[in-house]
Amino acid sequence: MTVKDKTTVYQHGTLAMLVAGLFEGTMPLSELLSHGDNGIGTADSLDGELVIVDGKAYQVKESGAVVEVAPDTKIPFASVHYNDTDAPTTRIENINDRKLQEKLIKDNDMFNVFYGIRITGTFSHMHTRVVPRQEKPYPKLTVATRVQPEFEQDNVHGTIVGYFMPYLFLGAAVGGIHWHFINDNRDFGGHILDFQLEKGDVSVQVLENLNQHLPVNNKAFRQAQINLQQVGDDINEAEH
Amino acid sequence: MTVKDKTTVYQHGTLAMLVAGLFEGTMPLSELLSHGDNGIGTADSLDGELVIVDGKAYQVKESGAVVEVAPDTKIPFASVHYNDTDAPTTRIENINDRKLQEKLIKDNDMFNVFYGIRITGTFSHMHTRVVPRQEKPYPKLTVATRVQPEFEQDNVHGTIVGYFMPYLFLGAAVGGIHWHFINDNRDFGGHILDFQLEKGDVSVQVLENLNQHLPVNNKAFRQAQINLQQVGDDINEAEH
Repeated sequence: MTVKDKTTVYQHGTLAMLVAGLFEGTMPLSELLSHGDNGIGTADSLDGELVIVDGKAYQVKESGAVVEVAPDTKIPFASVHYNDTDAPTTRIENINDRKLQEKLIKDNDMFNVFYGIRITGTFSHMHTRVVPRQEKPYPKLTVATRVQPEFEQDNVHGTIVGYFMPYLFLGAAVGGIHWHFINDNRDFGGHILDFQLEKGDVSVQVLENLNQHLPVNNKAFRQAQINLQQVGDDINEAEH
Repeated sequence: MTVKDKTTVYQHGTLAMLVAGLFEGTMPLSELLSHGDNGIGTADSLDGELVIVDGKAYQVKESGAVVEVAPDTKIPFASVHYNDTDAPTTRIENINDRKLQEKLIKDNDMFNVFYGIRITGTFSHMHTRVVPRQEKPYPKLTVATRVQPEFEQDNVHGTIVGYFMPYLFLGAAVGGIHWHFINDNRDFGGHILDFQLEKGDVSVQVLENLNQHLPVNNKAFRQAQINLQQVGDDINEAEH
């Protein structure tokens, strides 16, 4: 498709697969980027945090280093959408991550619908986490995420990309708001733990479709017996 | 889009919306049919069972009567896909619905992936159910489905259309196999309760994408506070 559909969040893989330890990459980045130019995810073997901004994909590694992802890098789990550059932005100042989440949820009635969120601004403080690369045989997600390097910077300018996903889709996706950060210098970022936003422009994009793609040709996935009872508990432990 | 994508099940609305009593139609049939030519669902106000075969949509009403659905009829919940007419079919004889479900699940490793199922054949017995039309203010699904007319025919030739959906998507969709029937005369059908298949041709189509569309412009949906804890229990009561 050559038309940029700005109403869809495209997701390859599911969070439940990661919970079960299915960390093998199953879609080349180049293919993922044919479905959106902004997004978040992880790389083959759970190798760090992906942040996709304006069609470029950055990988924040467990060392804290940021690299641009090669087109043939395989991705096990990621969500992307086409950022609506015509969408209105709201200037927001002096707010922390918790208060901003509450405000976004309240102002936009975030409950049953998918939303893309993008924030560009100056953060007086930004605190991130990066999942460490795993080796085969892969452990479960709760084990893989037990020890995660954390990174902090003050007075950093950059971009947050993320989503609100209805809790109905918890297990397929992360329920609620889930966002990653990358700075303008492209040398600091990751999964957001907390921040203090000094001044930023926030855009919220209603996405009426979730296009959930599954790696149907991956044998480990096709045959995996995923304990769904356990998935919810494990997500809470690994993602929060 | 003019290309018929045979790898996607397109779903408008969610089962959780029905569980919460959101029975108002939110997408015209004509738009739904632009995403697939086979499928199942229900109509505005939970008015019967939809069976979509080869691009034509039939509505089995609570009286047992079958009508062809008008293009502007609003649909609250339905799943459609483009039937792959080149897909191989398997001839299966003398089996009941339970054994056939078990066989399809076992033979195709139905667990984590979406599947479209279509069976054309002669049934020595077919037993269906039809949900009755509701009036506003709509009750919850468990109340609406408490009394449902049932219909039976012997020695009937017709078509089953349905899906296997991974239990990870339970709540958005019906987990497991869910299928509807329409006879060749287009005067008998509904949600399948049980059957005895005398001889039929079965085709199973792997669908690697679920395109989940939400009625983002429906105010009742946007503001609904759906109790997700309750959804699973209510689905079990209403759908089984």
